[in-house]
Amino acid sequence: MNVNDFLKTHPNKPANMDAVVACVKACYACAESCTMCADACLAEDQVEKLRRCIRTDLDCAAICAVTGEIVARLTEPDTGLMRAQLQACATACRVCAEECEQHASMHEHCTLCAQSCRACEQACNDLLAAI
Amino acid sequence: MNVNDFLKTHPNKPANMDAVVACVKACYACAESCTMCADACLAEDQVEKLRRCIRTDLDCAAICAVTGEIVARLTEPDTGLMRAQLQACATACRVCAEECEQHASMHEHCTLCAQSCRACEQACNDLLAAI
Amino acid sequence: MNVNDFLKTHPNKPANMDAVVACVKACYACAESCTMCADACLAEDQVEKLRRCIRTDLDCAAICAVTGEIVARLTEPDTGLMRAQLQACATACRVCAEECEQHASMHEHCTLCAQSCRACEQACNDLLAAI
Amino acid sequence: MNVNDFLKTHPNKPANMDAVVACVKACYACAESCTMCADACLAEDQVEKLRRCIRTDLDCAAICAVTGEIVARLTEPDTGLMRAQLQACATACRVCAEECEQHASMHEHCTLCAQSCRACEQACNDLLAAI
Repeated sequence: MNVNDFLKTHPNKPANMDAVVACVKACYACAESCTMCADACLAEDQVEKLRRCIRTDLDCAAICAVTGEIVARLTEPDTGLMRAQLQACATACRVCAEECEQHASMHEHCTLCAQSCRACEQACNDLLAAI
Repeated sequence: MNVNDFLKTHPNKPANMDAVVACVKACYACAESCTMCADACLAEDQVEKLRRCIRTDLDCAAICAVTGEIVARLTEPDTGLMRAQLQACATACRVCAEECEQHASMHEHCTLCAQSCRACEQACNDLLAAI
Repeated sequence: MNVNDFLKTHPNKPANMDAVVACVKACYACAESCTMCADACLAEDQVEKLRRCIRTDLDCAAICAVTGEIVARLTEPDTGLMRAQLQACATACRVCAEECEQHASMHEHCTLCAQSCRACEQACNDLLAAI
Repeated sequence: MNVNDFLKTHPNKPANMDAVVACVKACYACAESCTMCADACLAEDQVEKLRRCIRTDLDCAAICAVTGEIVARLTEPDTGLMRAQLQACATACRVCAEECEQHASMHEHCTLCAQSCRACEQACNDLLAAI
């Protein structure tokens, strides 16, 4: 499944399709990463030191999934609503990346999750600049 | 199930519990309302005139569900993340209420949905003022 | 917001409205309960003994939210799809209730969550018997 | 973000990792496809003929997202819960594929969505055979 090919079949085409496609991909990838990182943290021996990471991962996973879904919709979008949700997503990704980066030397899943979060933060900010 | 009773069993207690409880309730109620309004619009004879309402309902339902979930979590909250998501939710509720209010004379589900959206917009703004 | 009043405004009316309304309410209530129980468990001192409870809560919360949304839709339902999802929801609620019941004497949130899960399991089974 | 690389960083490793990875990927891809197909259908001129497709897409998108999330969690899984949700997902994917296939000659997004649904149905059934 290719997001770009799929969105080209939509009756409506946004002017900023490249930024839309990049943002949808980054949001879904980050939702997966944060879901997997929260779960891996929960299985770690020192789970009591990872409470904030688990919580932030769960928040970020949920926010990214919703943001990806909203950006992927091309029918009758509301720019104000989309901007507000993209800003929330960029914030959640930054907060989650900062938290995961603190555990990156201990847990490889936190390294990978921080990368997904930073990529999604960037993609949201790029789309914010394009709408 | 009573959100207030439930949150009282949490090891952590926020200072602004009343605003938290009101916001969680309003978010879940609005997620339900917007889900049902989108579906009722889809069944209406003149569905082609309700495209924007369906799309906005779907966005608002998803945003309210995620916001309710995040506000309900009391473990290691991040105020910046929560503020950004509450602002997105208040915006989505306002946009969806404005759309539903345009169809309120025709469709009772739009009347009810607009009420849920306005109540949730208020509850998000009240919590924003309390954190 | 009253689910019963809302669903009455839908162009379509199911034969088994009472069971539908009860199931929608129970699913959304259980999604909230499981979300809050997972978060409360995460904050407990002995979080390392609550891994299975947190994981099962997260699964059950997500399954209940989706099931409530699907049952609340009255437009062009597919009975086979709905039955399969109701069975998955009843299973998730039973598994989560059994887990929470093991911690009920220690954690009041687990007592409350188990009650929500048992109520939702029953509501799903009642609707399965009515469709 | 590579699901396979990510899951390898988890403290727990399932025996059937290949089937898990394939299922997670297929579920998230199908959630995206169904979200985009529902939205594209909503924008089509003859939206009144696509009500069942939109509704089934929305159900399938939500079920696939939840199933992908549950399968991606490797901490303390419950086989019974996972089997029930995989069966619901395989059913939803089959129902949605059958619906989209009826509109495939008219709408390319339905062609692409049916392909995602069939791939996800297969991945769910493969994992069911492996657990």
